[in-house]
Amino acid sequence: MFRHQKELQFEVKVEKPDPLLAKQIQEVLGGQFGEMSVMMQYLFQGWNCRGEEKYKDLLMDIGTEEIGHVEMLCSLISQLLDGASPDDQQKIAQDPMMNAIMGGINPQHLIVSGLGATPKDSNGVPWNAGYIIASGNLLADFRANLNAESQGRLQVARLYHMTKDEGVRTVFRKMLARDRYHQYQWMAAIKELEEKKGFVVPASFAPEDELEAQPHAYELWSLSEGTASKNGPWAQGAAPDGTGEFVFLDNPAPMGQVPNPPVPPTTLHHEIDVDKKL
Amino acid sequence: MFRHQKELQFEVKVEKPDPLLAKQIQEVLGGQFGEMSVMMQYLFQGWNCRGEEKYKDLLMDIGTEEIGHVEMLCSLISQLLDGASPDDQQKIAQDPMMNAIMGGINPQHLIVSGLGATPKDSNGVPWNAGYIIASGNLLADFRANLNAESQGRLQVARLYHMTKDEGVRTVFRKMLARDRYHQYQWMAAIKELEEKKGFVVPASFAPEDELEAQPHAYELWSLSEGTASKNGPWAQGAAPDGTGEFVFLDNPAPMGQVPNPPVPPTTLHHEIDVDKKL
Amino acid sequence: MFRHQKELQFEVKVEKPDPLLAKQIQEVLGGQFGEMSVMMQYLFQGWNCRGEEKYKDLLMDIGTEEIGHVEMLCSLISQLLDGASPDDQQKIAQDPMMNAIMGGINPQHLIVSGLGATPKDSNGVPWNAGYIIASGNLLADFRANLNAESQGRLQVARLYHMTKDEGVRTVFRKMLARDRYHQYQWMAAIKELEEKKGFVVPASFAPEDELEAQPHAYELWSLSEGTASKNGPWAQGAAPDGTGEFVFLDNPAPMGQVPNPPVPPTTLHHEIDVDKKL
Amino acid sequence: MFRHQKELQFEVKVEKPDPLLAKQIQEVLGGQFGEMSVMMQYLFQGWNCRGEEKYKDLLMDIGTEEIGHVEMLCSLISQLLDGASPDDQQKIAQDPMMNAIMGGINPQHLIVSGLGATPKDSNGVPWNAGYIIASGNLLADFRANLNAESQGRLQVARLYHMTKDEGVRTVFRKMLARDRYHQYQWMAAIKELEEKKGFVVPASFAPEDELEAQPHAYELWSLSEGTASKNGPWAQGAAPDGTGEFVFLDNPAPMGQVPNPPVPPTTLHHEIDVDKKL
Amino acid sequence: MFRHQKELQFEVKVEKPDPLLAKQIQEVLGGQFGEMSVMMQYLFQGWNCRGEEKYKDLLMDIGTEEIGHVEMLCSLISQLLDGASPDDQQKIAQDPMMNAIMGGINPQHLIVSGLGATPKDSNGVPWNAGYIIASGNLLADFRANLNAESQGRLQVARLYHMTKDEGVRTVFRKMLARDRYHQYQWMAAIKELEEKKGFVVPASFAPEDELEAQPHAYELWSLSEGTASKNGPWAQGAAPDGTGEFVFLDNPAPMGQVPNPPVPPTTLHHEIDVDKKL
Amino acid sequence: MFRHQKELQFEVKVEKPDPLLAKQIQEVLGGQFGEMSVMMQYLFQGWNCRGEEKYKDLLMDIGTEEIGHVEMLCSLISQLLDGASPDDQQKIAQDPMMNAIMGGINPQHLIVSGLGATPKDSNGVPWNAGYIIASGNLLADFRANLNAESQGRLQVARLYHMTKDEGVRTVFRKMLARDRYHQYQWMAAIKELEEKKGFVVPASFAPEDELEAQPHAYELWSLSEGTASKNGPWAQGAAPDGTGEFVFLDNPAPMGQVPNPPVPPTTLHHEIDVDKKL
Repeated sequence: MFRHQKELQFEVKVEKPDPLLAKQIQEVLGGQFGEMSVMMQYLFQGWNCRGEEKYKDLLMDIGTEEIGHVEMLCSLISQLLDGASPDDQQKIAQDPMMNAIMGGINPQHLIVSGLGATPKDSNGVPWNAGYIIASGNLLADFRANLNAESQGRLQVARLYHMTKDEGVRTVFRKMLARDRYHQYQWMAAIKELEEKKGFVVPASFAPEDELEAQPHAYELWSLSEGTASKNGPWAQGAAPDGTGEFVFLDNPAPMGQVPNPPVPPTTLHHEIDVDKKL
Repeated sequence: MFRHQKELQFEVKVEKPDPLLAKQIQEVLGGQFGEMSVMMQYLFQGWNCRGEEKYKDLLMDIGTEEIGHVEMLCSLISQLLDGASPDDQQKIAQDPMMNAIMGGINPQHLIVSGLGATPKDSNGVPWNAGYIIASGNLLADFRANLNAESQGRLQVARLYHMTKDEGVRTVFRKMLARDRYHQYQWMAAIKELEEKKGFVVPASFAPEDELEAQPHAYELWSLSEGTASKNGPWAQGAAPDGTGEFVFLDNPAPMGQVPNPPVPPTTLHHEIDVDKKL
Repeated sequence: MFRHQKELQFEVKVEKPDPLLAKQIQEVLGGQFGEMSVMMQYLFQGWNCRGEEKYKDLLMDIGTEEIGHVEMLCSLISQLLDGASPDDQQKIAQDPMMNAIMGGINPQHLIVSGLGATPKDSNGVPWNAGYIIASGNLLADFRANLNAESQGRLQVARLYHMTKDEGVRTVFRKMLARDRYHQYQWMAAIKELEEKKGFVVPASFAPEDELEAQPHAYELWSLSEGTASKNGPWAQGAAPDGTGEFVFLDNPAPMGQVPNPPVPPTTLHHEIDVDKKL
Repeated sequence: MFRHQKELQFEVKVEKPDPLLAKQIQEVLGGQFGEMSVMMQYLFQGWNCRGEEKYKDLLMDIGTEEIGHVEMLCSLISQLLDGASPDDQQKIAQDPMMNAIMGGINPQHLIVSGLGATPKDSNGVPWNAGYIIASGNLLADFRANLNAESQGRLQVARLYHMTKDEGVRTVFRKMLARDRYHQYQWMAAIKELEEKKGFVVPASFAPEDELEAQPHAYELWSLSEGTASKNGPWAQGAAPDGTGEFVFLDNPAPMGQVPNPPVPPTTLHHEIDVDKKL
Repeated sequence: MFRHQKELQFEVKVEKPDPLLAKQIQEVLGGQFGEMSVMMQYLFQGWNCRGEEKYKDLLMDIGTEEIGHVEMLCSLISQLLDGASPDDQQKIAQDPMMNAIMGGINPQHLIVSGLGATPKDSNGVPWNAGYIIASGNLLADFRANLNAESQGRLQVARLYHMTKDEGVRTVFRKMLARDRYHQYQWMAAIKELEEKKGFVVPASFAPEDELEAQPHAYELWSLSEGTASKNGPWAQGAAPDGTGEFVFLDNPAPMGQVPNPPVPPTTLHHEIDVDKKL
Repeated sequence: MFRHQKELQFEVKVEKPDPLLAKQIQEVLGGQFGEMSVMMQYLFQGWNCRGEEKYKDLLMDIGTEEIGHVEMLCSLISQLLDGASPDDQQKIAQDPMMNAIMGGINPQHLIVSGLGATPKDSNGVPWNAGYIIASGNLLADFRANLNAESQGRLQVARLYHMTKDEGVRTVFRKMLARDRYHQYQWMAAIKELEEKKGFVVPASFAPEDELEAQPHAYELWSLSEGTASKNGPWAQGAAPDGTGEFVFLDNPAPMGQVPNPPVPPTTLHHEIDVDKKL
């Protein structure tokens, strides 16, 4: 069960409204790697967590914090939209220079939400649950989380340079710091799990279970012209878990057959000739 | 530019058709972490790569391989559907036991694709590009790739136990081995980049650039009851990059204001009273 | 079966083209609460209606009218796009001030539809059937309809202020009046049903069927700090149907257990330790 | 800012696993009118609320409660999935009768989430933010909320009859009671607002602002054959706000022109003949 | 403006309910090439049609007919669902053999629509406007229409064999005949336009406008191993419009450069080394 | 299996960056009829092809070429974005005239992809597999392909006029020429199949199989007022396959019943009165 406190986690006070920036910031609210994504991803991972109390608690700590981040961004976006009105748009339509300033505004910020943030990305595409994962395998999911925090911090860093508003920048610095902590956190948790379980997900499907296919776990198939990719730690030396040595396959030949599926029943109306081969 | 060879990368020969399994395998073809996702993710990362030739070549090597994996799964699914026909469904409708066997078939495998694989997941939801990322930051993206290969291998491992068909299992073992290599590969590339650039994405937005917000980069806000989350390497000791010490905040207080946005212009028809406060 | 008359329901004659306004008006054509939504919602409710001839007829009357509203908006948008051309865009790219005027145009109005309306919202997101409902319970659905007409009229009212074009405004006034009628209509139908069946959907699952859970039907759980929500007719006095008295629960305690799901089978590759509790 | 308590709002204890029921219950978790929808709808309405403290507090109370309902359903679904495993599927594939029992299971409950709930509906379609609304107009939004609670309670009532599991039914009775309260609550809030502002959304666009279009606000256009729709309070008598009398238009004639848009510039490549009229 | 007649275009009378078939038939109602798609595609093409009265009238004739086809399929699906109830599902859950018969039912037909058709495909994916096109170029769009009618008739033909219900088959035969007419119709219209305008869309961008690129309009680039594709009328002889001779390019070499985009500004936080080349 | 060559199929060298054009060009990369669609459509058709070696080879030739077209467009878009930076946006926010030039930029080109192309359309809507078809019936699918190439070439032709950049135009001319070839190619293949199998898809469901419904295959139902549609080769004369004569039905009467579905079981909570008829 959850409870809400009225105060925001951090203070949000923009210097002045900026509807274009409001549109851009929607990306880190309702985009693929916005706060809605980490909020829902951590909550679902926490709710579905079976066993491992300390991980479950960690997921619920941070998932709960992220609800507050969505809240904080809604507040930020509202402030950036403050004072905009349909009338402005009308005036803009009559003044080319005003159009220059406001032409790129998200129309839904006026028409649909009435100056509120929307659960959508910077192009107005609604958030959807296809962005998130809760697999029940903690190592897999912590890697998803580390990725989400990395992409998220990258996007906030880019947005940081898109404004000089010191109020907005102060909020972004808080988010950058929190995203930094969250990267540390998932790194630490990943390291702990990798040391306990092994590096490969899932470790419980072990190299020896792959039987005759094992050798393929160490091969770089060079299927793009050139051999620049040979010059990396993924193409030579031992695998991270010491189970084998990497091999660089230059110009590798396919090992399978030319597929040749049979002609289907006529009730499927393919209308393929029986003596189909050329 | 690309070229196609007729042979599959690995041989695909199922023991006998199994339309229910065909439906389930769609998940690793057209689902969130199916082969279509890694194919498109690596190709877009490769095409958009600026500089760093060896990484670009690596991305194109593996992106090109993944096109062949989608091809291989199409072949696998076709074989599992072989021989099914609309007439079967009709007979099934008249025989309860047959219904038991075929009732769960994906109707689109008959009606839409005529015994072919579809670019959709195991519930028939079409693949969409909201699943993938190509950010232009290699470390961020390699973390996305390691996650994708981890989730993908986990799903194939689960599917492995859902069939006894040795032909299908042979293909899965190939995929499990390749997914293992791809995990090694991104791990190795991540390690190289972390050593060169630092652990946090983006490293070029450094701790000191966060100014007054820096301390927040080391705090675990315990917002879920209980302190089990305290017992982990993310709550005590030094951060991975040695820039600070972790702090566990039990029962942390919010640091922001109670948000109180102004009443908007009347042309937005909010119909909020001017003396709005209770 | 349906028939089409060539004339529009109301006259549509804009004063002058305005491609930016055309983009904005897409919201009330193909957005969540646009005319496509009410058209499809009423038609599906009507087609699926079982019994209650007068309601079915009403739904078909208004559903059929709404097809004509989509038609009318297509005409409006076409007129606002009239005369725009790819060449304009090219000239704009060379003239900053022109860019100011036309930079925000929906590119698909040129590239995809060739100056026609599209079945999409003001940000270009395609209409989808997840916006609508036809549940088979008339009271539930009429509430959905009252909501749709309320949101729709609100959006048109906001758009009204975004233009001074008297031709556009005349069409909007027609739409505002019709949306007003449709709100009256669903209100009247809702009142009739509430009086016959009761206020709660579905009334046929009566308070007494809720057994031991009945008391929870009168409690406001105050889970957000502060007690401002206490000061409303939802927190004190009798429920609308007189079946109980409202109770304000300040600082309510959870009544359930701490969930503790068992460790799953190993074939799911969770890799959770058996002695999982910390 | 938010906080999490470990206990569920209500106790969840199913009698025995039932993966088919787990699939069906997904509808009221991640479907159009599932708990995710009311949770996100109330939170966004609360976050975007400007003025009117008691309404904002109410929205945050109930929005916060709904996060706990999603949590409760995740727990319920997990319990219904308990003990299922990939091996079961394999055995099922060899036993027609087992297939009868398990053939309809959601494959993602095994392959993707490893026995956890997913943020998707009963057919596996991911939740998306196109389901929700926060318009900034409280009356409009409370109508959306009353609709959501009506549809939601209807769906739970239908699900109630789909199982005899007394543990599941106990949870459903709690949800039915809470959904009943939430309907009362929005009814009460709607009544208060209608009395203060008027019945039509938005009231601030008044009948007289509709000018010459006013009469159309009282007309039922009978565009579906038959006159059954005449026999209702929407077709005769005074409008709810007493501003006019309803009129039933039998066989109404269109009032607009036959649209005749001009031929577009040739750079749009329409290839329409200049002397286009037949 | 539109009008509705109470009678269906054709009679719909199924022999007996069949919820599994109801689920399958959803494909041709709300799927990619279902009746909703042709309905919306023809209506939007008609509404956006500029000039060419006879084509516009034709589009409106058939678009209006298709609304009635959606209506007819709703009626068909309702009849196939008749008599199903939540109680049945409960009983099924206790009887393996019943499960065999009903396990594959679409849960939303019970929970969401209460035995009504839904605007979704056979897997429950909502219809969306990304399925349709109205480009403003009649030849392009008539080709889209011919494709839609071809795919649609193919799907109905496959469904035809999936049931022995003579009532359902009678409806399908009507649909098959209408789809046949609609194929004839678009073929005839396409032929007329091709003869007037030329075979290539858009003809107004003529071969000579392609300047130096013209020769590429006659080349088959054989990028898949093998030369089987050489044996067709697309690889030898004159192009349909006689403007050139086809050429088969075996093992064609790329004509472009190796792309080498510059390193972006540091504010994008790519963190690419300046001396990036290996 | 596939292989990649480093060189682009054609040279891509733009004269100067133009972020607005980059946004617009996304349409033909990731839109409904962009290169991603033809790439995935041809590959899936090829992979699922059963029999008919020369068609399969043709599909793989051109599907493989299209992967290279996506690659080429990524290169084009990257060049048009070159040099843009977050700082520019900040400066723009302070300079109305700059806003005029850059206000309409796709925010994701900065925030999400870091100056790379995205797998989305010109409004930022992600590509999804609902755009494509691979039905297993070659004639149906080749019609889909001819449509896709027609719509695609039309869109490129429109874009051609939206820029004066000779580098961009050179690429477009290549694409226009290739799209012209691909139209020829599908036309030729369609003609061959029509001559072998017949004009109607699927021909294997023959006119005589439609039994009593046959006459409906030649009727134009004039359901839109006016008879302009009578004046075309679809309304008079013989059908293309000579199996019947077209008939123009002016003011056609419906042939079906008024649908009257029974009241459903009470456990569906419809709450419809038993004596429902008015």
